[in-house]
Amino acid sequence: MTIAPYEHKVQYYETDKMGIVHHSNYIRWFEEARVDFLEQVNMPYEDLEARGIICPVVSVQCKYVGMTHFGDIVCISLKVEEFNGIRLILSYEVKDKRTGELRCTGRSSHCYLDEKGKFVSLKQVCPEYYEVYKQVEEQ
Amino acid sequence: MTIAPYEHKVQYYETDKMGIVHHSNYIRWFEEARVDFLEQVNMPYEDLEARGIICPVVSVQCKYVGMTHFGDIVCISLKVEEFNGIRLILSYEVKDKRTGELRCTGRSSHCYLDEKGKFVSLKQVCPEYYEVYKQVEEQ
Amino acid sequence: MTIAPYEHKVQYYETDKMGIVHHSNYIRWFEEARVDFLEQVNMPYEDLEARGIICPVVSVQCKYVGMTHFGDIVCISLKVEEFNGIRLILSYEVKDKRTGELRCTGRSSHCYLDEKGKFVSLKQVCPEYYEVYKQVEEQ
Amino acid sequence: MTIAPYEHKVQYYETDKMGIVHHSNYIRWFEEARVDFLEQVNMPYEDLEARGIICPVVSVQCKYVGMTHFGDIVCISLKVEEFNGIRLILSYEVKDKRTGELRCTGRSSHCYLDEKGKFVSLKQVCPEYYEVYKQVEEQ
Repeated sequence: MTIAPYEHKVQYYETDKMGIVHHSNYIRWFEEARVDFLEQVNMPYEDLEARGIICPVVSVQCKYVGMTHFGDIVCISLKVEEFNGIRLILSYEVKDKRTGELRCTGRSSHCYLDEKGKFVSLKQVCPEYYEVYKQVEEQ
Repeated sequence: MTIAPYEHKVQYYETDKMGIVHHSNYIRWFEEARVDFLEQVNMPYEDLEARGIICPVVSVQCKYVGMTHFGDIVCISLKVEEFNGIRLILSYEVKDKRTGELRCTGRSSHCYLDEKGKFVSLKQVCPEYYEVYKQVEEQ
Repeated sequence: MTIAPYEHKVQYYETDKMGIVHHSNYIRWFEEARVDFLEQVNMPYEDLEARGIICPVVSVQCKYVGMTHFGDIVCISLKVEEFNGIRLILSYEVKDKRTGELRCTGRSSHCYLDEKGKFVSLKQVCPEYYEVYKQVEEQ
Repeated sequence: MTIAPYEHKVQYYETDKMGIVHHSNYIRWFEEARVDFLEQVNMPYEDLEARGIICPVVSVQCKYVGMTHFGDIVCISLKVEEFNGIRLILSYEVKDKRTGELRCTGRSSHCYLDEKGKFVSLKQVCPEYYEVYKQVEEQ
């Protein structure tokens, strides 16, 4: 299973008065890449939510290596760093599409909650999702 | 009943690469002013939502008169232009607090929906809210 | 010259607690469509800025017809409603890609400013841009 | 020198379809708290920028402890964790104003750049700013 990097075109409204992308937007791009990843493996996040499961962000970190400008296209590659059905850790690399230069690296950790806000194990509540993450983790 | 203008401090993340506030943020400030208005009249929007009523934006318009910069404080005054319990029209004036200069004028129209997405009349479902809007409209 | 509609995938961070896209985001999508249009006609906005010309939004309006949800793809078509080199008026239609249903219509007007903030005529400062807009307007 | 916690009222547009504040907004609140801190010590960020110095975010991290809802007021306290004039590390605690409950902790690191994008030492280019940070750090 090969996961293609996610592409994002930098929008004007994502810039700030420094003339570069505001740092908070990278956190949003990580989310875009996660959503895209789940679509690539045919398990859209909407489906998870439709079963009453949400996957909130427990922590996030971001290291800004280079600046990104309006009009740039960035490629975001995502890796499953750790996954046991209860906790998910993802890592991200944001690169400029044209030059391949690294712009930012990041990491997010997640848990799974049911509709009452109780922790659940994806292995139990959505075994298909669990298997997909496991497969991607092993790569 | 006097409604005090709502004050907003312009944040760095609200600017764009032109060095001024991105135009989409004024639409958000209108929302901030609406929420503040409802608090001033002791009828917070949370309470309306808790009764299963939402008040979505049906249309919005904004005329940009002057530029707003990081660090500026803007005062947003709100008027009830039209209200019949079913449709609400508000207008806004955004002024620089220090100079009093006009930055932007706007207008938004709203309806009321119940949890099934059906139109409702505020007069019937929340008469107290209805009365408050009516009073403010008459001013 | 045919302008293809601009496609936008709705992101999770664009939703609000109503469970639908926050109304302020449509204003940002209009900007995305404008930027895309300028790329389609080979005159990216970056090039205009590089010549010291900016094209700020003078007014914007938006009429919300239907709701848009996370994961939806919207198609935004843009028309040049009026253009004389000094003032530009664009209109937008946002439709759901899958169903073709109308979600929102909008309109924005713009002017052109040089680096000192002085109004300029695109006909004089960037005749190529002027010609493109004129051609698109006539369609 | 006592730094008062920064207060932020949670806006509707900051929520997402989970019904809580979208995680990316906390990163923006950290920025609000930084800007407020610099004002409290009479050294607004605008002044730094006016001297041609910017202070970009080099890294940021955020640990989400509890959920924040529309209408909540959060208090953000900021600490100077490390500062040598070249590198600045700040930490943040976001608490619910009413209950005092912790919502989120965070950390950001920063450097100083001049107009050419060259690293500078605040000790050399803005000794007054340097002294203030040093004083706050020692507390």
